[in-house]
Amino acid sequence: MAQELKILILNGPNLNLLGKREPGIYGSQSFEDYFSKLQFQFKETELSYFQSNSEGDLITKIQDADGVFDGIVLNAAAYTHTSVGIGDAIAAVSVPVVEVHISNTFAREAFRHQSYVSKHAKGIIIGFGLQSYELAIKSFL
Amino acid sequence: MAQELKILILNGPNLNLLGKREPGIYGSQSFEDYFSKLQFQFKETELSYFQSNSEGDLITKIQDADGVFDGIVLNAAAYTHTSVGIGDAIAAVSVPVVEVHISNTFAREAFRHQSYVSKHAKGIIIGFGLQSYELAIKSFL
Amino acid sequence: MAQELKILILNGPNLNLLGKREPGIYGSQSFEDYFSKLQFQFKETELSYFQSNSEGDLITKIQDADGVFDGIVLNAAAYTHTSVGIGDAIAAVSVPVVEVHISNTFAREAFRHQSYVSKHAKGIIIGFGLQSYELAIKSFL
Amino acid sequence: MAQELKILILNGPNLNLLGKREPGIYGSQSFEDYFSKLQFQFKETELSYFQSNSEGDLITKIQDADGVFDGIVLNAAAYTHTSVGIGDAIAAVSVPVVEVHISNTFAREAFRHQSYVSKHAKGIIIGFGLQSYELAIKSFL
Amino acid sequence: MAQELKILILNGPNLNLLGKREPGIYGSQSFEDYFSKLQFQFKETELSYFQSNSEGDLITKIQDADGVFDGIVLNAAAYTHTSVGIGDAIAAVSVPVVEVHISNTFAREAFRHQSYVSKHAKGIIIGFGLQSYELAIKSFL
Amino acid sequence: MAQELKILILNGPNLNLLGKREPGIYGSQSFEDYFSKLQFQFKETELSYFQSNSEGDLITKIQDADGVFDGIVLNAAAYTHTSVGIGDAIAAVSVPVVEVHISNTFAREAFRHQSYVSKHAKGIIIGFGLQSYELAIKSFL
Amino acid sequence: MAQELKILILNGPNLNLLGKREPGIYGSQSFEDYFSKLQFQFKETELSYFQSNSEGDLITKIQDADGVFDGIVLNAAAYTHTSVGIGDAIAAVSVPVVEVHISNTFAREAFRHQSYVSKHAKGIIIGFGLQSYELAIKSFL
Amino acid sequence: MAQELKILILNGPNLNLLGKREPGIYGSQSFEDYFSKLQFQFKETELSYFQSNSEGDLITKIQDADGVFDGIVLNAAAYTHTSVGIGDAIAAVSVPVVEVHISNTFAREAFRHQSYVSKHAKGIIIGFGLQSYELAIKSFL
Amino acid sequence: MAQELKILILNGPNLNLLGKREPGIYGSQSFEDYFSKLQFQFKETELSYFQSNSEGDLITKIQDADGVFDGIVLNAAAYTHTSVGIGDAIAAVSVPVVEVHISNTFAREAFRHQSYVSKHAKGIIIGFGLQSYELAIKSFL
Amino acid sequence: MAQELKILILNGPNLNLLGKREPGIYGSQSFEDYFSKLQFQFKETELSYFQSNSEGDLITKIQDADGVFDGIVLNAAAYTHTSVGIGDAIAAVSVPVVEVHISNTFAREAFRHQSYVSKHAKGIIIGFGLQSYELAIKSFL
Amino acid sequence: MAQELKILILNGPNLNLLGKREPGIYGSQSFEDYFSKLQFQFKETELSYFQSNSEGDLITKIQDADGVFDGIVLNAAAYTHTSVGIGDAIAAVSVPVVEVHISNTFAREAFRHQSYVSKHAKGIIIGFGLQSYELAIKSFL
Amino acid sequence: MAQELKILILNGPNLNLLGKREPGIYGSQSFEDYFSKLQFQFKETELSYFQSNSEGDLITKIQDADGVFDGIVLNAAAYTHTSVGIGDAIAAVSVPVVEVHISNTFAREAFRHQSYVSKHAKGIIIGFGLQSYELAIKSFL
Repeated sequence: MAQELKILILNGPNLNLLGKREPGIYGSQSFEDYFSKLQFQFKETELSYFQSNSEGDLITKIQDADGVFDGIVLNAAAYTHTSVGIGDAIAAVSVPVVEVHISNTFAREAFRHQSYVSKHAKGIIIGFGLQSYELAIKSFL
Repeated sequence: MAQELKILILNGPNLNLLGKREPGIYGSQSFEDYFSKLQFQFKETELSYFQSNSEGDLITKIQDADGVFDGIVLNAAAYTHTSVGIGDAIAAVSVPVVEVHISNTFAREAFRHQSYVSKHAKGIIIGFGLQSYELAIKSFL
Repeated sequence: MAQELKILILNGPNLNLLGKREPGIYGSQSFEDYFSKLQFQFKETELSYFQSNSEGDLITKIQDADGVFDGIVLNAAAYTHTSVGIGDAIAAVSVPVVEVHISNTFAREAFRHQSYVSKHAKGIIIGFGLQSYELAIKSFL
Repeated sequence: MAQELKILILNGPNLNLLGKREPGIYGSQSFEDYFSKLQFQFKETELSYFQSNSEGDLITKIQDADGVFDGIVLNAAAYTHTSVGIGDAIAAVSVPVVEVHISNTFAREAFRHQSYVSKHAKGIIIGFGLQSYELAIKSFL
Repeated sequence: MAQELKILILNGPNLNLLGKREPGIYGSQSFEDYFSKLQFQFKETELSYFQSNSEGDLITKIQDADGVFDGIVLNAAAYTHTSVGIGDAIAAVSVPVVEVHISNTFAREAFRHQSYVSKHAKGIIIGFGLQSYELAIKSFL
Repeated sequence: MAQELKILILNGPNLNLLGKREPGIYGSQSFEDYFSKLQFQFKETELSYFQSNSEGDLITKIQDADGVFDGIVLNAAAYTHTSVGIGDAIAAVSVPVVEVHISNTFAREAFRHQSYVSKHAKGIIIGFGLQSYELAIKSFL
Repeated sequence: MAQELKILILNGPNLNLLGKREPGIYGSQSFEDYFSKLQFQFKETELSYFQSNSEGDLITKIQDADGVFDGIVLNAAAYTHTSVGIGDAIAAVSVPVVEVHISNTFAREAFRHQSYVSKHAKGIIIGFGLQSYELAIKSFL
Repeated sequence: MAQELKILILNGPNLNLLGKREPGIYGSQSFEDYFSKLQFQFKETELSYFQSNSEGDLITKIQDADGVFDGIVLNAAAYTHTSVGIGDAIAAVSVPVVEVHISNTFAREAFRHQSYVSKHAKGIIIGFGLQSYELAIKSFL
Repeated sequence: MAQELKILILNGPNLNLLGKREPGIYGSQSFEDYFSKLQFQFKETELSYFQSNSEGDLITKIQDADGVFDGIVLNAAAYTHTSVGIGDAIAAVSVPVVEVHISNTFAREAFRHQSYVSKHAKGIIIGFGLQSYELAIKSFL
Repeated sequence: MAQELKILILNGPNLNLLGKREPGIYGSQSFEDYFSKLQFQFKETELSYFQSNSEGDLITKIQDADGVFDGIVLNAAAYTHTSVGIGDAIAAVSVPVVEVHISNTFAREAFRHQSYVSKHAKGIIIGFGLQSYELAIKSFL
Repeated sequence: MAQELKILILNGPNLNLLGKREPGIYGSQSFEDYFSKLQFQFKETELSYFQSNSEGDLITKIQDADGVFDGIVLNAAAYTHTSVGIGDAIAAVSVPVVEVHISNTFAREAFRHQSYVSKHAKGIIIGFGLQSYELAIKSFL
Repeated sequence: MAQELKILILNGPNLNLLGKREPGIYGSQSFEDYFSKLQFQFKETELSYFQSNSEGDLITKIQDADGVFDGIVLNAAAYTHTSVGIGDAIAAVSVPVVEVHISNTFAREAFRHQSYVSKHAKGIIIGFGLQSYELAIKSFL
């Protein structure tokens, strides 16, 4: 652990609205603010952050992370439930991916109980609010 | 109503082919031509138009419309039936969205009977050909 | 358009309770009051109104409207989801039928997402409250 | 067979439109005309005919036929696929019921392949056009 | 309880055949006879009785009972399993409805396990033979 | 009708056991005996009879009947519910095929409610016992 | 009825929490308090009470009640929906079992609409709150 | 945080075999050994451990933990997928429950993708091997 | 038992390849070799053996065995899962049939979990390799 | 075989009622009597017997049998169809388990056609009455 | 490639009708004519051709081809969708099998979208008309 | 054929990883290397190549190819199973599209058996490894 771990936090569609969107479900803090706190908390770790509403961009980012990052914390949001391509990307790379969700997807609509991502993930963390990201990072340490 | 209403017409994949694609189903008029007629018909309303084949772009456009437009007339086309992300975007913004379809989706394949968008729409208008857009605009007046 | 259009508004079961029934979902105005406003608004159009709780009566009314009316605005309510017979009647007549719903049926129970009527309708308008009827009439003008 | 057989032909919703409705599927002869021919053909048999668009009326007619008729030829049309009540009525009476259909229901929509009536019928005759009724009457002779 | 409770017993299709129909399942006593016994047993309660084979009539009767009766004991029979409209009517009125069944519907065909009524009922009583009605009345006392 | 009609009766698997097999369901008369009666009854018609337990033989027989017979009365028995190939054969030939069943398949196991044959049949006659064959022959006259 | 009836009230998992657990659904009275009231109300009847969180214990209790009690009032709670074994036990004994539920299970999650118990019950009483038990006892008197 | 947090680790069926059972899936360390390490690692936290193969015992333990522990880390193992009762228990108590799984249940049989527990959990941690427990404890700190 | 029992071993499609086909699943011994061993082991029993790849031949063989053999040991192989006709044949004859499978069909593809044969079998023996046949013969002794 | 084989017969819920429960399905002999006969018949084998109505006890017994018995003959009865935990226990131990059923589960309700146990069993024997146990023991010899 | 490749073209039910059957779907050339052209085109390859309407014959032919041919081009036609046995035969032999279809099965009925053959094929070629065979042969060269 | 055919090879998500990604499934050659070989092999044909991870880009590319290319060889990869929009694009253009897959999708997860593309393709080639592309090009020659 002499060398810093490099972790990519990858957020999917609509997570750029965090803090604005449905605060009853997702809380009122923007992800950028939260990310700063994470950087402060995990000073020994090199954290990067990327968000996109595009399935293709997320696939590309996962591919590009291979060999560059030591781990990905992925909240694929809506694409979790519809994207075979993101699942395939995770299976194709060797960098381990931890799937996270802010809300408890199992307490929401039935279509959110299905995931094309989970099967290929190193582990899955669901429902702890923004703390899900923190726990995911800790799982790499 | 002293102030002009601002309405965004947002078209999804393959609707740029209108007038060329399967005229038996979609008619032979291009959307650009039709849009000009709409602008002429609704002189008191500020109409904007955007089309994309990309799910991510449509999500972003819906997000960006929030606080800028008074309403969105959305024909998500194929993404209607597969995009959880567009549905989530509509739920996340406060600008009202009216879902429209040119053809009668219920008279077509079974997978077109399912919608991830409808649940979050202010209202839904299906099957009137291009007139669906006109009725949708009227619903905002 | 020298000659007046004749439009029949046909309401199915429990819509006679409008204004009394579940105002959270259906609003607090009776349909009779609303119908008067529609007649005032569409002075050039001859509007008729019929309501029945009976599937058979609705079928008969659709049959009888053929050749008499220029269009039917049909809110089959509960029968939308269970009546093959009303769908058959619409397919059997040549008068065009526009299906309307007051509430957003896609935001309610799953059994309200299925329709035996939609496939045969000229168009479908869902979720605009009583305005759904107004838009349907406009679709004939 | 010294005594005349009494047979009730019972037609369900929209069959009053026969000859008018979708002639490609149902032919262009009205049922009244056809019924006259049947009466001529089966002189030894007392044929009665009743049609209704109402599920309740059809149930009542089946109940009333018990002990009065020697057989019922029933084309429940749309109610075939949705009416538990008509099926229950047939199970409740002792007069035998032969189910008929003019068109081949198995060559049409999937929901027409399901029947609440067939299970309780003495026999089922499907797809011979109006000849289905003639064969049904012959089944009683 | 100084004032008499007013209870409406509402029976659906084929229950007019009680005592004649499938006595192995429904017993051999007519409902009229049983109703007299109920009136004798519940002298302090004003009992009314209505039966119809028509879905529309049952819907209307439920609507009309609102504000007139203190409770409805409803055996919707076959319509239990197919009538969205009766369920909607119950949801629309404020008079409480207790659903009853004579036979154990769960020991019969699978389609009798589904109910559009139960969800809106104050309570449900199934399988006690005619005693189901008696228990339902007691639930109001 | 100067020329004799030629009809092929084609029986599928286990129908050679008729009279022996489950008499409660199928009766106690052998098909050979019944066939003699049919020949006597329809003297003007040239009746042929073939039975096989083999799906392939039945397909071949249907193919060979094309251009030779004026009609086929087919009881495909068990293959009704599992043979895409027999359905394809009927679709491929121009000789009309009437599907018959001795027992009421709708009153038996659910897998007997599905048919790969019915869709392609000229008509379907079910549940009249051996009389089903007689009615089928009459449908050709 | 000279001799006292002996009735066993058998409660399944989590019903020991009654009065504490989700009072919005189950009310705020403990079952022990309610049981005392029942004993007071039904002085002529010998009421016993047993609760267990264990499926096996409930099966054993049903077996042991055979020949000892005149009836069982069973609220199997969660096991209603998952226990084939409790259903088998009821089928195996001759003591009649009345199934009760406090809440309206049909107004809750879909998995609570399925029951392995109901088919074997003498009768079923659902949704009357604690009054369900009282009505069940009365059904034995 | 002057006062120690009290956390109960609750393990379901077959987890007593850990280290012996299918090491390819579950690893080769016994839970007792792992629990000692956890106690050493979380010295500020009072950790308790209970394992049972019995659904009823697990329900009771969850009930008893209410008001005694600050949190439960629950690996319900096989009961995750079949126990409505454990889900009900979690809903009934106010102590927060974090669901954990050692293996990635989404990479295993389809019946392990369904959970009666998740919906009621504070959060869910899946697939990190024994580290899942450690992360769950951290989620309470 | 003075008289020898006569048992027919009837093997379905591809079992002629035994010893060659997928030895990891079916072992490496040919059925002919194994049959010799069975004949040696059951000297008091007259064992016959027949194999066919044809569904029709298997049906015919079952029919022909009636009254000739005292029992059939049937491995219908692939036809187990698709042949209504073999199931019908077993139901039609009075000779008892024991169904056997070499491999554990429940540990293989889902379509091998369904059987049209089992319901009509005297008993079923699955997964013991070739020993399944030996146990089946013993069940007749 | 110099050393005695040790076999555990493990019976699930309600099998303690054997001889009393539904003799039409299960016969009229108690298992204890039958077990004595088995012990007499298999003198060279050390047979043990355990029955429980509790899923947890059965799981524990399977775990405890590992390394102690040479084989388990398991009739999990109702738990066959609902217990993931018993299936997991069998997968976790190395002692081979033969699944037995007295009745032909495939000739009973659909929910008895599903098994969480079969996949992990060495073999499965169904429908031979009590002889199923005898054949299972023989499979170990 | 000094030595000639030996390829067997194996056609299933109704393909003997090619050129006669439904020319809109299958074209108007007989397979024999087409086969001559293939032999001319692939002079270096030894092509054989076999057609059967019998599932059993097709299974046997696949078995017999093993060790004799270098490849099979299989159009199992209707049996593609229903024959577990043909799929098992392909899995059992080592000769590679290429599955072909003349029409686009995915543009036809839903039951033609399922295949028991594809999983075991070396490759699948669908919808090129008779060219599908040519491409399949080329895949072996 | 004096003029060169112009063919576009269009690859979907993750196919840029070919040679790196899961070589057990997809082989170890990069697509760029393979494309050079194809260009060498098909000198008379003008081959173009485009890959994207974005659904929208693939839709646009298909639209743009219309009137420019003589054929498209499309491997939509993951989007095959989820993209209604790509299927719509193919239906909208007149350039013929041949669908290819490298691996045998029918031997993989069930969700890969469904395709929104196949129905609209000129033909489909599955499972030949990279040779699938070569065969697809040949299908245009």
